[in-house]
Amino acid sequence: MKETTKPFSPTREKLHEIIFEADTPAGKAFDIALLILISASVLVVMLESVNYIQIKYADLFWTLEWVFTVLFTIEYALRIYSVYSPRKYMTSFFGVIDLLAILPAYLSVFLVGAQYFLVVRALRLLRVFRILKLGYFLKEGETLMRAVRASLAKITVFLFFVLLLVMIIGALMYLVEGGRNEGFSSIPRSIYWAIVTLTTVGYGDITPRTDIGQFLSAAVMLLGYAIIAVPTGIVTGELIRSNQKADITTKACRYCSREGHDADARYCKFCGEELEG
Amino acid sequence: MKETTKPFSPTREKLHEIIFEADTPAGKAFDIALLILISASVLVVMLESVNYIQIKYADLFWTLEWVFTVLFTIEYALRIYSVYSPRKYMTSFFGVIDLLAILPAYLSVFLVGAQYFLVVRALRLLRVFRILKLGYFLKEGETLMRAVRASLAKITVFLFFVLLLVMIIGALMYLVEGGRNEGFSSIPRSIYWAIVTLTTVGYGDITPRTDIGQFLSAAVMLLGYAIIAVPTGIVTGELIRSNQKADITTKACRYCSREGHDADARYCKFCGEELEG
Amino acid sequence: MKETTKPFSPTREKLHEIIFEADTPAGKAFDIALLILISASVLVVMLESVNYIQIKYADLFWTLEWVFTVLFTIEYALRIYSVYSPRKYMTSFFGVIDLLAILPAYLSVFLVGAQYFLVVRALRLLRVFRILKLGYFLKEGETLMRAVRASLAKITVFLFFVLLLVMIIGALMYLVEGGRNEGFSSIPRSIYWAIVTLTTVGYGDITPRTDIGQFLSAAVMLLGYAIIAVPTGIVTGELIRSNQKADITTKACRYCSREGHDADARYCKFCGEELEG
Amino acid sequence: MKETTKPFSPTREKLHEIIFEADTPAGKAFDIALLILISASVLVVMLESVNYIQIKYADLFWTLEWVFTVLFTIEYALRIYSVYSPRKYMTSFFGVIDLLAILPAYLSVFLVGAQYFLVVRALRLLRVFRILKLGYFLKEGETLMRAVRASLAKITVFLFFVLLLVMIIGALMYLVEGGRNEGFSSIPRSIYWAIVTLTTVGYGDITPRTDIGQFLSAAVMLLGYAIIAVPTGIVTGELIRSNQKADITTKACRYCSREGHDADARYCKFCGEELEG
Repeated sequence: MKETTKPFSPTREKLHEIIFEADTPAGKAFDIALLILISASVLVVMLESVNYIQIKYADLFWTLEWVFTVLFTIEYALRIYSVYSPRKYMTSFFGVIDLLAILPAYLSVFLVGAQYFLVVRALRLLRVFRILKLGYFLKEGETLMRAVRASLAKITVFLFFVLLLVMIIGALMYLVEGGRNEGFSSIPRSIYWAIVTLTTVGYGDITPRTDIGQFLSAAVMLLGYAIIAVPTGIVTGELIRSNQKADITTKACRYCSREGHDADARYCKFCGEELEG
Repeated sequence: MKETTKPFSPTREKLHEIIFEADTPAGKAFDIALLILISASVLVVMLESVNYIQIKYADLFWTLEWVFTVLFTIEYALRIYSVYSPRKYMTSFFGVIDLLAILPAYLSVFLVGAQYFLVVRALRLLRVFRILKLGYFLKEGETLMRAVRASLAKITVFLFFVLLLVMIIGALMYLVEGGRNEGFSSIPRSIYWAIVTLTTVGYGDITPRTDIGQFLSAAVMLLGYAIIAVPTGIVTGELIRSNQKADITTKACRYCSREGHDADARYCKFCGEELEG
Repeated sequence: MKETTKPFSPTREKLHEIIFEADTPAGKAFDIALLILISASVLVVMLESVNYIQIKYADLFWTLEWVFTVLFTIEYALRIYSVYSPRKYMTSFFGVIDLLAILPAYLSVFLVGAQYFLVVRALRLLRVFRILKLGYFLKEGETLMRAVRASLAKITVFLFFVLLLVMIIGALMYLVEGGRNEGFSSIPRSIYWAIVTLTTVGYGDITPRTDIGQFLSAAVMLLGYAIIAVPTGIVTGELIRSNQKADITTKACRYCSREGHDADARYCKFCGEELEG
Repeated sequence: MKETTKPFSPTREKLHEIIFEADTPAGKAFDIALLILISASVLVVMLESVNYIQIKYADLFWTLEWVFTVLFTIEYALRIYSVYSPRKYMTSFFGVIDLLAILPAYLSVFLVGAQYFLVVRALRLLRVFRILKLGYFLKEGETLMRAVRASLAKITVFLFFVLLLVMIIGALMYLVEGGRNEGFSSIPRSIYWAIVTLTTVGYGDITPRTDIGQFLSAAVMLLGYAIIAVPTGIVTGELIRSNQKADITTKACRYCSREGHDADARYCKFCGEELEG
């Protein structure tokens, strides 16, 4: 729990508090200002890609983008300066995102199109949860995350099966529709169709035309109907499980101090002592 | 539970009973008549928008619309007159809806097209639940509402993640397909495509054409496959929780003090003593 | 439990056993033959609608259809003759279906196209569950049915909300896209689009073209994302509930003979007597 | 549990260990090499179907395919040679797949197009789970499988209902749209449309055009909305059930004989006595 850190100068301490913490007024103000800046900068990147807007405001966008980039670069430098362990920060999730949020701008000087990668700045908006640090949302997010993480192994196995399935279906449809339908021009494209169908997205850019092809597709859809239930079942099961865990009493044993007893438990399940209350 | 109200004249009292209550014969008849009127008026607004019907019955529709508007205006005035606290009513959910249900008609005199907002009258149909006040449906609706409300925080966090995700995916697809596919003409449009795909709606108005684009799309769909499970899991978890809460009484045994008895239990299942209540 | 019936002649008794029961060899053979006939007759109706097949086999189809119709008519007559209460049978679910399965054939003499209603014969295939009478499938079907019936009230309330929602969304999209997009030519058509979108079917026959329209659609889809979770949650909740009910012990009280005790119950919850085992 | 096998020569024993087991270094290396070969061979089959790649590398692909086929044939022969019971292996799931993985190559000498069936080799990738034999994934896969198997009866009943439903809906839509819409040209095609719609795939290759047709479709979609919930509910219910079973141990207390203790419990939660094992 305890961290040993080299003593910082008061300015650096203050800077650290403002930039990295969100529970002081100054820190909160800094974080909110940052979120507004990030949102504005993401909006500019998006609008820049819209042709008729870009033509009109090209200069404004260019200026704004560099203002944002300079500001974010200064912020990044200050973070490195004020953090206790610069290396740890730079290799952390947010540290990498912070760097990725400024790099494309500098790259765009040499490389046309690189500036669109600036949209990665959107990920910096995840900091919004830091402001709500002690709030309700973070706890909900954590419950969600835990359930998703617990489901990951099952979902990986499931996706592996789905991948094998779409390969077989794709090859089959290529054989059936291949020659007569320019949509099924190759097995990879037929696999793309199989994924579009099985996930019930159903663009309709590639559709079966022969009778056998339509019959097969209908079978695939009914299969997909049953299959789509599986990931839902997995996640739901985990969410209910973690709901129930949250329902478990927090009463601790007087002797061994361990928690996690059922509501109807009268004796500690770890040391056998009687529980109070 | 008790409300202190200034004494009303018998006529106003009677009016209040008819308009605001649904358990007297007169009140019920009023509510049913109102629901029929609302349905008819919504139907007229809809049919008016169908070109070949509008051409034929323009005069009839015009007359009907003003009849409905005048009737609803009278009703609105009577509601304000007969309610104990006009201000409270006017700022309540149904009070605002009642006003919005007549305003567009008057606005349409000055503003072409405003009359289509009259479709908001459909929301007045929610009053149907008042007639079924004591019925089964309201309880079911409440259970649903409670579960949805309990899921709201989790779903908000989830939608925030989805929004960041579609921004990144949209920008990526714009880079990949942008120049070669007029569908992905800008990042906002690519984000629209990402939402259409991730939610498995899949219009097919914008579809990837390059090999990399189709590969990326397939990955997005499989991702969406796993992601669509999350809101379902959230709502299901909450519904099951509220089901369980509704199933278990909290009445405790007088002798052994244990709880968890079924609603139909007359004797304690742990010690055999008679249960009260 | 007991039924008083007028005594039948042995022939009629035998006939009743063959036609209405499925646990004797003769009854089972009759039911299987019937199912094959029904399947064949449905197949003929379907193939008849395929133009190039119909041209080739018109005569064969005409003959087959009348053979099936005559056979089913005889069967219907025999059912009425051999059943204990003809009126009860004729107004039962299967009695009505049996009649509807022959009527369209006779109607088609006067009315062109009526023969396609013969596809209603497919519903007679539900008799397949009678053959599996004592089997596993029927129990599963019943569990499903009970869960769906228990969900019906909640789903009705839910569909009512969805209907109001698509009306508002439809009118809004008509106002936004109406003039510029022949797809959104009227409010009813816009409501059709809203249903296609909200249910994630997404044909793509009507798609938004304006920027505001696409923005609104994206919002509707994300909403639909959360909304689609609700019916799933309802049905899942009920299915889990009925699973749990099936888990409840079947041990009966020695004194009051009532069942439905929890697995951990030591005393009868209805009369307070000690439970055995 | 014990198997009596004829004594093998040490070479054959060693071969068996390498080919059929995955827990020795040699066995693991063999399995990993095999998986890489299978993946490469599936990739070649896929790329071969892409026209512009095939034209360029036709010779390379031809060579590679025969190299893979010869290697897999040798492997198949070695498996038969080194296995204790060749007949048992050849009729097992993997034995059949192993044969199917080489047959199409030989068939392609006589039969054009047969080589695309080589994609069935992808199924051999299921061996990947053998390498992870003792791992976490296999257990997860088993839990999934058990839940899916337990759901099978319910899902079969459900799919039977859905099939009857799409037949009725298809015939109805054929009657409504048939003459005026070349998409609904026959009942089988209308059934294809009904399946595309009910499963929310929604290609949009066939869409209703008449007002009644669109109204009916909207009803079908709302129905599909409620219906899609059923398979999800079934699988979720089973998954939760098997989760719960996995969570609760069946060990009973020696003194009070009560069960239902958690897996990490060391003392009885009801009487406080130490639990065994």
